[in-house]
Amino acid sequence: MSQKRQSTAITGNLLYAQSGGVTAVINATAAGVIEAARGKGVKVYAARNGILGALREELIDTSKESAAAITALRHTPGGAFGSCRYKLKSLEDDRAEYARLIDVFRAHEIRWFLYNGGNDSADTALKISQLGNAMGYDIRCIGVPKTVDNDLAVTDCCPGFGSVAKYTAISTLEASLDVASMAETSTKVFILEVMGRHAGWIAAAAGLAGEGEDEPPHIILFPENSFDEVAFLAKVKATVERVGWCTVVASEGVRNAAGEFLADAGTRDAFGHTQLGGVAPVLAALVKEKLGYKYHWALPDYLQRSARNMASKTDANQAYAVGKAAVEYALAGMNAVMPVITRTSDSPYRWKIEPAALDKIANREKKMPADFLTLDGFGITAAARRYLAPLIQGEAHPPHGRDGLPKYGRLKNTAVAKKLPAFEH
Amino acid sequence: MSQKRQSTAITGNLLYAQSGGVTAVINATAAGVIEAARGKGVKVYAARNGILGALREELIDTSKESAAAITALRHTPGGAFGSCRYKLKSLEDDRAEYARLIDVFRAHEIRWFLYNGGNDSADTALKISQLGNAMGYDIRCIGVPKTVDNDLAVTDCCPGFGSVAKYTAISTLEASLDVASMAETSTKVFILEVMGRHAGWIAAAAGLAGEGEDEPPHIILFPENSFDEVAFLAKVKATVERVGWCTVVASEGVRNAAGEFLADAGTRDAFGHTQLGGVAPVLAALVKEKLGYKYHWALPDYLQRSARNMASKTDANQAYAVGKAAVEYALAGMNAVMPVITRTSDSPYRWKIEPAALDKIANREKKMPADFLTLDGFGITAAARRYLAPLIQGEAHPPHGRDGLPKYGRLKNTAVAKKLPAFEH
Repeated sequence: MSQKRQSTAITGNLLYAQSGGVTAVINATAAGVIEAARGKGVKVYAARNGILGALREELIDTSKESAAAITALRHTPGGAFGSCRYKLKSLEDDRAEYARLIDVFRAHEIRWFLYNGGNDSADTALKISQLGNAMGYDIRCIGVPKTVDNDLAVTDCCPGFGSVAKYTAISTLEASLDVASMAETSTKVFILEVMGRHAGWIAAAAGLAGEGEDEPPHIILFPENSFDEVAFLAKVKATVERVGWCTVVASEGVRNAAGEFLADAGTRDAFGHTQLGGVAPVLAALVKEKLGYKYHWALPDYLQRSARNMASKTDANQAYAVGKAAVEYALAGMNAVMPVITRTSDSPYRWKIEPAALDKIANREKKMPADFLTLDGFGITAAARRYLAPLIQGEAHPPHGRDGLPKYGRLKNTAVAKKLPAFEH
Repeated sequence: MSQKRQSTAITGNLLYAQSGGVTAVINATAAGVIEAARGKGVKVYAARNGILGALREELIDTSKESAAAITALRHTPGGAFGSCRYKLKSLEDDRAEYARLIDVFRAHEIRWFLYNGGNDSADTALKISQLGNAMGYDIRCIGVPKTVDNDLAVTDCCPGFGSVAKYTAISTLEASLDVASMAETSTKVFILEVMGRHAGWIAAAAGLAGEGEDEPPHIILFPENSFDEVAFLAKVKATVERVGWCTVVASEGVRNAAGEFLADAGTRDAFGHTQLGGVAPVLAALVKEKLGYKYHWALPDYLQRSARNMASKTDANQAYAVGKAAVEYALAGMNAVMPVITRTSDSPYRWKIEPAALDKIANREKKMPADFLTLDGFGITAAARRYLAPLIQGEAHPPHGRDGLPKYGRLKNTAVAKKLPAFEH
């Protein structure tokens, strides 16, 4: 690597953009990118609101930020430059967008583009990496992994997942201590709804809260299994009768045998609209209706993916490391790769960062291995624990102010002067 | 005090019971009680599941626990001995229950009863404090304050509130950073539903997340004000147009002009049941219907009151201090009092513990002062900030294990041998 780096002769600027749902640690990746590039004397522009900023020529000059401000990104949740949900079409379907990107890159001497996101973003990064040949402008593009969904191929895990996993495990543990205290006269069934529409990684992480059938969570509902009402109710009943109470963790993506989301099938609001993100109240109503138990349910929604105050140190470190590696790969002349996390040991946990080809990652989805789920489908196996446990290890509490709040960073986000006419599209 | 303490001649055991909804720090109060009593050579029994344990003669011998196990209670959420929702009737209406309590007290030489709870518990404690005269058994009863609702009279604040206040302020801040990042193409309105059915103390604490009209939370909905749909929608719209997004924090107790809970008026589940704890989805649907904005909502439920991992140090310290003081008052021969928190300075924040008469506390409710709410009813004033800010100051992170989870304590809870026949009631 070091030889390759030294042979880099291209000069120019590096553009970094955040894409898709943000996480508790995506800004740590930004810090890794900016600090590594500064160390090499390369200027980093950031696109405002992800790829939209690149199309609109809304660029941010990160060289205007102090070293302390960049370091603070390591412990600041959200996306410091803004993110977006916007997928580029194929080059054949919308050549104008790609031509515009090249215009913006050329106008601002952008030679390296780092795109920080999930599956869709890896696809976008791959397309842009091919523009050098297709459109005659030398651009190197590196995908940088990020997603709480943990569903990127090749990489052992995704930056962002470890922290939401830790949030989920700790929340399951804490709420269960509450429920256990009160079960004699109050709530007997507690339901925690977590993110993960297509894969149960986050729900699985709740399983780290306890081990053994009497410890919470007693039941995990995965999107990988179709919901079996009879088996579910039987297990809730058996758990309450044996333990006195029952904690259920449900993925938002739980579906019935017909393949419909339970959340959609269930609750409607005052206007008759289906309520999204509401599998927990549907399950709660079912428990009440069929078993008569008092219930409570929680739906932390964005809280789970923004809770930097309880982030995993492992996750925060990996998020930083992929950012740093992405710059090293770019400056070494690599193209169409992503720095991925390779696990070299479960216990003690050891990992390293390696480059992987974007075409092995784009538009693929890593499923949860079948042997991660127990036979009854309501829990996680030892294999799952071996995989998940290291990812929540270590605390990375942000500094707090005297006011009792975390001291989250705030950037100036100074705009780079536009050089092009507005993009009409 | 110290003279009074030394003059105490009564010998016997002390009974401690937890009551009502538990908090992140009620076990810190238990630690304060047990450590103070041990220091005086007094044995502490704990009632299993609150007053029910006293009635059922289900007592726990805390002397069987190690010093380390008791110290671990300082950072363990939930109720270590179990709690309950159970209100004693008046002595006239149910003399048998009181007679049973006296029987249990007498059988186990219980001379001091410490009851750790909210308004109802203060009432129970007051009634028991009067049994000495009414039923000829010398029992001293001390109420010990605890409630996330912060609605106890006399005391400046209630142990348990500071931590849920901190949870709410931090969650508001973190989720808002997430929303701000994504607002260009995704969620524009985020709604966080918090506890507080009758008073808006917890909702008010969200206001500590930011200051100024552009900072979150942009709108707080209090149970103290009846919901004004037109004004609410106008403020959401103006905020989204000015800031780009809008964070709303809503108390679960928000009511419409007819006095009905918005949550009740709103969502019904698949079985046609009204969904409790659901003002957030009702508001979200309203925003979507009338303004067309994409929304997300969160309902942390028990997570907010059990999140010991992000507790307020001020709160944890106060919870311990009231436990310790309760023992000192009891052993000094006081009866029918509660250790309350008296604020002596806002900034720097200073407080002390003092005894207050239970009959000034029982069955009363501290309302939020009218001057804590802004004129438009959607925010908190400088007076509210002065009051609230100190309560979330300081971090008291629990120790974490190598597994990345907080090391929460677990007691043996050794039962005291029963001496009486079962209570038939």
